[in-house]
Amino acid sequence: MITTETSPSQYSVMSWFVRLFLLLCCTKCSLSWVYERTRGQVWPLPRFVSYQKTLNYINPVKFTFKVTNNTCPILDEAVKRYTDVIKKMLPRNHHQWQGCPDFSSLQEVLVTLTEPCEDWPNLHMDEHYEVHVNRPDYDNLTIVSSSSVWGLLRGLESFSQLVTPATDAAGCLVLNSTDILDYPRFKHRGLLLDTSRHYLPVPVILNILAAMEMNKMNVFHWHIVDDESFPYQSITYPSLSDKGAYDSKHLIYTQDNVKNIIEYARLRGIRVIPEFDSPGHTRAWGGGANKLLTACFTNGSFNGEFGPVDPSRSQNFKFVRTLLEEVKSVFPDKYIHVGGDEVQFGFQCWMSNPTVTQFMKDNNITSPENLEGYYMNQVLDMVYNINASAIVWEEVFKHGDPLHNDTVIQIWSSNRTEMLKEVTKEGMYALLSQGWYLDHISDQWQDFYKIDPTDFDGTEKQYQLVLGGEACMWGEMVDETNIVPRIWPRASAVAERLWSQKAVDKTAPAPRLNEHVCRMRRRGVAAQPANGPGFCP
Amino acid sequence: MITTETSPSQYSVMSWFVRLFLLLCCTKCSLSWVYERTRGQVWPLPRFVSYQKTLNYINPVKFTFKVTNNTCPILDEAVKRYTDVIKKMLPRNHHQWQGCPDFSSLQEVLVTLTEPCEDWPNLHMDEHYEVHVNRPDYDNLTIVSSSSVWGLLRGLESFSQLVTPATDAAGCLVLNSTDILDYPRFKHRGLLLDTSRHYLPVPVILNILAAMEMNKMNVFHWHIVDDESFPYQSITYPSLSDKGAYDSKHLIYTQDNVKNIIEYARLRGIRVIPEFDSPGHTRAWGGGANKLLTACFTNGSFNGEFGPVDPSRSQNFKFVRTLLEEVKSVFPDKYIHVGGDEVQFGFQCWMSNPTVTQFMKDNNITSPENLEGYYMNQVLDMVYNINASAIVWEEVFKHGDPLHNDTVIQIWSSNRTEMLKEVTKEGMYALLSQGWYLDHISDQWQDFYKIDPTDFDGTEKQYQLVLGGEACMWGEMVDETNIVPRIWPRASAVAERLWSQKAVDKTAPAPRLNEHVCRMRRRGVAAQPANGPGFCP
Repeated sequence: MITTETSPSQYSVMSWFVRLFLLLCCTKCSLSWVYERTRGQVWPLPRFVSYQKTLNYINPVKFTFKVTNNTCPILDEAVKRYTDVIKKMLPRNHHQWQGCPDFSSLQEVLVTLTEPCEDWPNLHMDEHYEVHVNRPDYDNLTIVSSSSVWGLLRGLESFSQLVTPATDAAGCLVLNSTDILDYPRFKHRGLLLDTSRHYLPVPVILNILAAMEMNKMNVFHWHIVDDESFPYQSITYPSLSDKGAYDSKHLIYTQDNVKNIIEYARLRGIRVIPEFDSPGHTRAWGGGANKLLTACFTNGSFNGEFGPVDPSRSQNFKFVRTLLEEVKSVFPDKYIHVGGDEVQFGFQCWMSNPTVTQFMKDNNITSPENLEGYYMNQVLDMVYNINASAIVWEEVFKHGDPLHNDTVIQIWSSNRTEMLKEVTKEGMYALLSQGWYLDHISDQWQDFYKIDPTDFDGTEKQYQLVLGGEACMWGEMVDETNIVPRIWPRASAVAERLWSQKAVDKTAPAPRLNEHVCRMRRRGVAAQPANGPGFCP
Repeated sequence: MITTETSPSQYSVMSWFVRLFLLLCCTKCSLSWVYERTRGQVWPLPRFVSYQKTLNYINPVKFTFKVTNNTCPILDEAVKRYTDVIKKMLPRNHHQWQGCPDFSSLQEVLVTLTEPCEDWPNLHMDEHYEVHVNRPDYDNLTIVSSSSVWGLLRGLESFSQLVTPATDAAGCLVLNSTDILDYPRFKHRGLLLDTSRHYLPVPVILNILAAMEMNKMNVFHWHIVDDESFPYQSITYPSLSDKGAYDSKHLIYTQDNVKNIIEYARLRGIRVIPEFDSPGHTRAWGGGANKLLTACFTNGSFNGEFGPVDPSRSQNFKFVRTLLEEVKSVFPDKYIHVGGDEVQFGFQCWMSNPTVTQFMKDNNITSPENLEGYYMNQVLDMVYNINASAIVWEEVFKHGDPLHNDTVIQIWSSNRTEMLKEVTKEGMYALLSQGWYLDHISDQWQDFYKIDPTDFDGTEKQYQLVLGGEACMWGEMVDETNIVPRIWPRASAVAERLWSQKAVDKTAPAPRLNEHVCRMRRRGVAAQPANGPGFCP
């Protein structure tokens, strides 16, 4: 029987009266009646999951994963990581343990990869996997299997989420016999981090990547530079961070930092897509790149301010091309995000500058929107010339010439239903972020959860052009003091929406999210309360 | 010259053009133009402060405070604490220091207490102090002085805030010659923490107390128990936390925990006022106190739910009295908060219970509001009988019989202007919290800063009945993962409003608050960004 409806050993199945009884009569009651939390359920919800009643006990001291077929460093590291997760799954009072007795029934989990590993996560990676715990028709084996190393990563995560400390056998862990057959609904399940408005220390980024793995998110969209600071230490143009970082020695990302972040992500099946947003949002580039930005004029003379990249200077396109070539060599993903948003805030500056307006006349460019389109099309040509693909913000779709049809349009500000329809109608790929802005602090996880990337009127072909979406953590008001609890668990709602079946919101997710919050907490991610009063065991 | 207007060595005095020049031309510029931050200015703003241009350099290795007159353990500990603050005031690159050269001009600060110490902070404690740095008419001495140990604590805090790492002399600290004459505008400057909706670990509470000292707040209002959990481990009634805590072993406050918290607060001149809220907000008391809560009825029979404390049973008053006697013996402050809010949510239950309604008839109590008043007046009598004073929520003023005129009314839900007027018109003391709810996450510090406890139409005598106010951090959505950045720096706005002169909001506080955020951060308090993009040095 394959179903998503069964709920093993969960607080929420207790009736109000049972809970009242516990409250009034039991000698060791915890006030679970104010707070429902599942035990051993998976987030995001698998496509097909069936829990049986049989309980399987694990002695964490003796527990092992056994790789039975292909392997590679990604899988070896994952097995180490999840062995550690299982062995450290201790409740608060673990020092009182007597050790798990020998009746424990589950000591070994087979980890079976049927095809060779890929080296780099990518848009088209296969994330299917199966988990069978104590499968009767299979010699009562417990197995996590996939034809893809990426699928195995997801499967190991799900397996680890089935396991909880046993309440009836101190020192043991426990999980129900379970069958899972799982794969994501969308290929691109991303989180945007903005390291320009506030610098984020590398360990904070790694902690967020670890949490992304727990939520089966697979794209770290690194909005690495912007108006406020340029922390990326470029090989070709070191002056950009020398002049543009908040602190050119300490608040930068060195090439080593970037390599470490990419490798940490790769081992977790997470793509790192860097964004170098232009021609707007480039104020911090100006100190380190001579004449890159447009000088703004008032009454015929330079007024001391600078606008977007100056598209009248061919040297500026050469500069951007060289930078993109470096980016392509540093970041292995096929995709580069080249921004293109909110250029309209710089239109007045462009139109005030006599060289720019002369350039427009000379090239029959009749409006600043068209100048923006001209600029972005040049940049997109560069991207495709270096064998990369591009993601852009929605304005580029609105203002550009017809775009290379491999280009992905990220929707962030318009009516999302209309924009999804229009973009896919033109045969373009779409990513949804509108409605998933984590900096909107009044939005609860329920608000994010309501939004679905296929909630528009389109054809099946159009729906298939929707690659997924991204939760966006813009950095104006967050830094290392508050970013982790602001992201988690609200981004978990986006993660589940992008992984699980569309009707997942009908499954009463709140008690499962409460468990997931406590799980993230136990694994070192400071996820904040999801649903009001409560506690983690 | 005494003034609050001078601004020494501060980023904000740089003109836009100077900053633009730095951005474009300097070789080591940081992008301070997006972000203004003072250097060496005090938060909350002193009543009178005058900065001179003379800079005084400190070699942190040789620096000492010298106590010249009275002393006591509170002062000794404070001197150790602030010596540590000064000596550890290192910028990020301190490992590159050569050490501060011997030209440093300020090695010793005199700490002068002219009267004996008090042992316990209290409502009427004196917090006046003076700071003079390199005072010409006083042998160029630097001195922090007060007639009260509480004033000295505030003065040492202010002195420490004047000091910053020198940018022109690596390894040295620096401060302007300065004169401060300072005292608070309100006596009661509080922060409410709610440890019932989520348990807060003791180290988190201590960290918040440390931050309160940095903000010269002097009352920790400990909303220790509520409907959701009862973490206070009572000596007399241990069953209350045994049955009512989220986890009766690990998520409780033992008597030792409470003692440590009170002592940590005492050393910082912070009163600890516990709140045991009744007759509503007591659901978690029910498991450990037999028949304390009213059984609710539907159609003539018990419906399984419980309401407020049952006021028809004289044993319940005895129970509350015994608990309050314990509270008085454990918490040294004169004041106990006895709650009394939102009882109306339990009116229906009271009126459904035949014993309660019979009791009302027998005692000529004609409405649930009057029953609430009857209950609270009994509780207030208990408080005054044990030589304590009471704080209550505003409903008690609205529904009670005439109250003992020592009672303090905490205003939280009504139109604050009207309520402040009414309460003080009756000659009662008032505390303001309405508008200062930190759980309203969309409220910025600027929203809190706008509110003043004297913004009502009253006589001078009425204004004097306003003791101050409290920022309230209700616990539904916060726990150790996010509470510190959610409190700070937003509560700093309330702290300044309650300490400084009324017109403090005319002083362009934002750059000073940015410095204060970085100062709290440096001292181990995870204060979140106050004003958008930026960084701490």
